[in-house]
Amino acid sequence: MNNFVFQSPTLIRFGEGEIANLAQHIPPQAKVLLTYGGGSIFQNGVYDQVKAALVGHQVGEFGDIEPNPRYPTLMKAVELIRNEGYDYLLAVGGGSVLDGTKFIAAAVCFEGTDPWQILSQDAPVKAALPLASVLTLPATGSETNGAAVVTRGEDKLSFYSDLVKPQFAVLDPTTTYSLPPRQVANGIVDAFVHVMEQYLTTGGAPVQDRFAEGVMLTLIEEGPKALAQPTSYEARANLMWAATMALNGILGVGVPQDWSTHALGHELTARFGLDHGRTLAVVLPALLRVRKDAKGAKLLQFAERVFAITEGDNEARIEAGIAAMEAFFRSLEMGTRLRDYDLDETVVDGLVGALERKGMTALGEDGGVSLEVSRAVFNAAL
Amino acid sequence: MNNFVFQSPTLIRFGEGEIANLAQHIPPQAKVLLTYGGGSIFQNGVYDQVKAALVGHQVGEFGDIEPNPRYPTLMKAVELIRNEGYDYLLAVGGGSVLDGTKFIAAAVCFEGTDPWQILSQDAPVKAALPLASVLTLPATGSETNGAAVVTRGEDKLSFYSDLVKPQFAVLDPTTTYSLPPRQVANGIVDAFVHVMEQYLTTGGAPVQDRFAEGVMLTLIEEGPKALAQPTSYEARANLMWAATMALNGILGVGVPQDWSTHALGHELTARFGLDHGRTLAVVLPALLRVRKDAKGAKLLQFAERVFAITEGDNEARIEAGIAAMEAFFRSLEMGTRLRDYDLDETVVDGLVGALERKGMTALGEDGGVSLEVSRAVFNAAL
Repeated sequence: MNNFVFQSPTLIRFGEGEIANLAQHIPPQAKVLLTYGGGSIFQNGVYDQVKAALVGHQVGEFGDIEPNPRYPTLMKAVELIRNEGYDYLLAVGGGSVLDGTKFIAAAVCFEGTDPWQILSQDAPVKAALPLASVLTLPATGSETNGAAVVTRGEDKLSFYSDLVKPQFAVLDPTTTYSLPPRQVANGIVDAFVHVMEQYLTTGGAPVQDRFAEGVMLTLIEEGPKALAQPTSYEARANLMWAATMALNGILGVGVPQDWSTHALGHELTARFGLDHGRTLAVVLPALLRVRKDAKGAKLLQFAERVFAITEGDNEARIEAGIAAMEAFFRSLEMGTRLRDYDLDETVVDGLVGALERKGMTALGEDGGVSLEVSRAVFNAAL
Repeated sequence: MNNFVFQSPTLIRFGEGEIANLAQHIPPQAKVLLTYGGGSIFQNGVYDQVKAALVGHQVGEFGDIEPNPRYPTLMKAVELIRNEGYDYLLAVGGGSVLDGTKFIAAAVCFEGTDPWQILSQDAPVKAALPLASVLTLPATGSETNGAAVVTRGEDKLSFYSDLVKPQFAVLDPTTTYSLPPRQVANGIVDAFVHVMEQYLTTGGAPVQDRFAEGVMLTLIEEGPKALAQPTSYEARANLMWAATMALNGILGVGVPQDWSTHALGHELTARFGLDHGRTLAVVLPALLRVRKDAKGAKLLQFAERVFAITEGDNEARIEAGIAAMEAFFRSLEMGTRLRDYDLDETVVDGLVGALERKGMTALGEDGGVSLEVSRAVFNAAL
C-alpha cells in the first residue's frame, strides 16, 4: 500500500424526508444561494421541500446550470454572488449542478485575473465559499468529494480542492423516483466506471479491492432493480449509496488510479455531445482489451470476483470478464461502441489530436496510455 | 436501509514515516499533552519520532494509562491539564490510550459534579479538548470514531460523542512490527468482531454487507501473515487499515447493530481480567449458536461469502460458518471457550447477575438477548 492522506469531512444525511432537516447545518445568518439545473426540481417537489426547510434563511436562486456545466453560465453566478453578497451555496440537483457550484465557490474567491486558470493551469484554490448539496441523481459521487468538471468550448477540464468538498449532503432516495431511465442508466455506469478507475489497475490492496468489488456487485444487482421498479425505495437507496461510495475517495486510498477512460470519454462529450456515462461505456471495454497485458492480474481477479468467471485459460477469463461488463452496460440500454452513436473511424484522428494538444500523451496509472494506445482504444471501440 | 446521519471528519495520514508530518495538523500555539501507556513507545522509537515531530510546540506528558483504562488514572490527567493548561491532547498508543484520552478530553470540559456521569448516566458531552492520535496497535478502530470505554472497579462502561473524534490519526504500520503476537491476535479478533456486531444481525444492506465481508476476508487473509512475518509491511499495512475500517462507522450506516457480544465480553474483562479480544472470541461463537434462528439468513450469507461454505442444509451451513470462525480464532492461539481461561459453570450466575444490575436485559439489534439468553450464551461458551 502506498502512503496516503485521506479525509472525508462531508456530513451525510441519508433517507426519505431528510431534506426537512438540512437547515440545522447552515449558519443562521448565512445568505444562501440555491443553485440548480433545468428545472426538474420544480416537477418532483424537491424545490418546495428545500424552500420549506430554509424558511427563516435569506435565500436567492441561480438556475439553468446545464449538464456538463459551462464556464460562461457559471461566471454569471459568480457575478450574481459578488453583486448580491451570498455567502453559502446550496446545490440542488445532480453532479453537474454540484460540479458547477464547486467551481462557482472557488471562482468567487479567486484572486488571479481569470478563474478559468483554476481549470486550465491548475491555479491553486486558496479559498472558496462554503457549499452543500441536496442530491437528486446518484451518479457522480461529487456530493462528498473535492472534484469538479467544467466545460468551455470543446475543453472539458477538471480541478480538485479540499476547499470545495460539500459541508453536508442530503441524499433522499425518493427524489430519484422520477428520473428518466436514461439518466438512471448513465448514473449506474458512471458510478461503475468510477470504481474501475480506482480498481482495475496494475496495483491494489485487499480492503480497497474488496470495497470496490462490493460497490460494483451492488450496482450490478441493484441497478436493474432500480430501473425496473422506479419507486422501489430499497433499490433506489442502495443505488444512491453505492454511487456515493464509488467516488467518496475511500476506494482509492493508497492504490494507483487510472482515469484514462474518463480522459478519453471527456473528448467524446466535448466533441460530439455524448452523455458522460455513455462515453465511459464506450471507452472502458475497449481500453481494457487494449491494455489487457499490463492489467492482466487484476482483470482475472475482476472476472472471478465480480462476474464469477472461473472457467477457461487466463486469456479466455479476461475476455469473458470484459464481455460480461459490456453486456451489463448493454443491458442498461447503453451503447458500448462508437457506431451506436453514429461515429466511425473518421473521428479517431480528431480525438487523438485533441489529446495531443492537451498534452495527454501518457495517461493511466502507469503512464502506459500513449497517444498510440489511445488511438488503439478508439479503434477498438468502433 | 434505515435513515442515517454519518460523518467521519478525522484526517488520516497513513504509511511509513508519516509521524514526521503530524505537527502541521496541530495549531502552532497549542500546548500539547502527550498521553501514552506502559512505555512500549520508548522501546520501539515512536516516542522519539513524535517528540522530534513536535519540536517547536510546547509539550507535556502523561503516561501509564493502563489497558482497559481506569477512571482514577484518567482523572489524574484531568487534574494535570487543569493545573498546567494543556489545550491539545495527542494520544500515542493503542485503543486503551485513545479511549482514555477521549474521556480525559471530555472530562476536562465537563460542567457537572462528577465526570463519571458521562459513563454511568449518559450525561451529555457539551465540549471536549481537541485530540488526535498516533496509533501503534491495529485493533479498536478508536482512531476515527467517537466511542470510548472506561473501567472503574468492576464497571466497564462506554460513551460516545462526536466531540471526541480525533482530529487526525497517524497510522504507520512499521510502529506495529514490535508488538507481542498476543496483542496482534487480540487486535485481529477485536476488529473481526467489530465487523460482526454491525453485520451479523437480522438486517443489512448490500454495500454495507459487502464492505463488512471485505474487511473480514482481509483479516482472515492478512492477519496470519502479519503474525507469521512481523515485519511484512504489506501485511501490517493491510491489517492496520482493515482494523480502522472495521469501526470507522462506514460499515454500520443505515443497518441494525448488535453489540451484545461486547456487552457480555465486558463482564468477563471486568470480573476476571481477560483481554478484551479474548472475551469476544469466547462470547461470539456461543452467541451465534444460541441466536441462530433469529440470525439465520445472515449466518447463511456469512458462511457462504466469508468462508465459502455452500454444502449441506441450512442448519449444517450455519454451524459450519460458526465453526470456521471459531477455528480462525483458535488458529490465532486464541481460546474460544471459558474453560480455556480456567472458568467453569460456577461463574455464570455472577455474570448474569452483573448484567441484571446494569439493566442489560434486552441486548442485541432486536432486544432479543434477554438475561436468559445471556445465560444460555455463557453456558454455550463453557
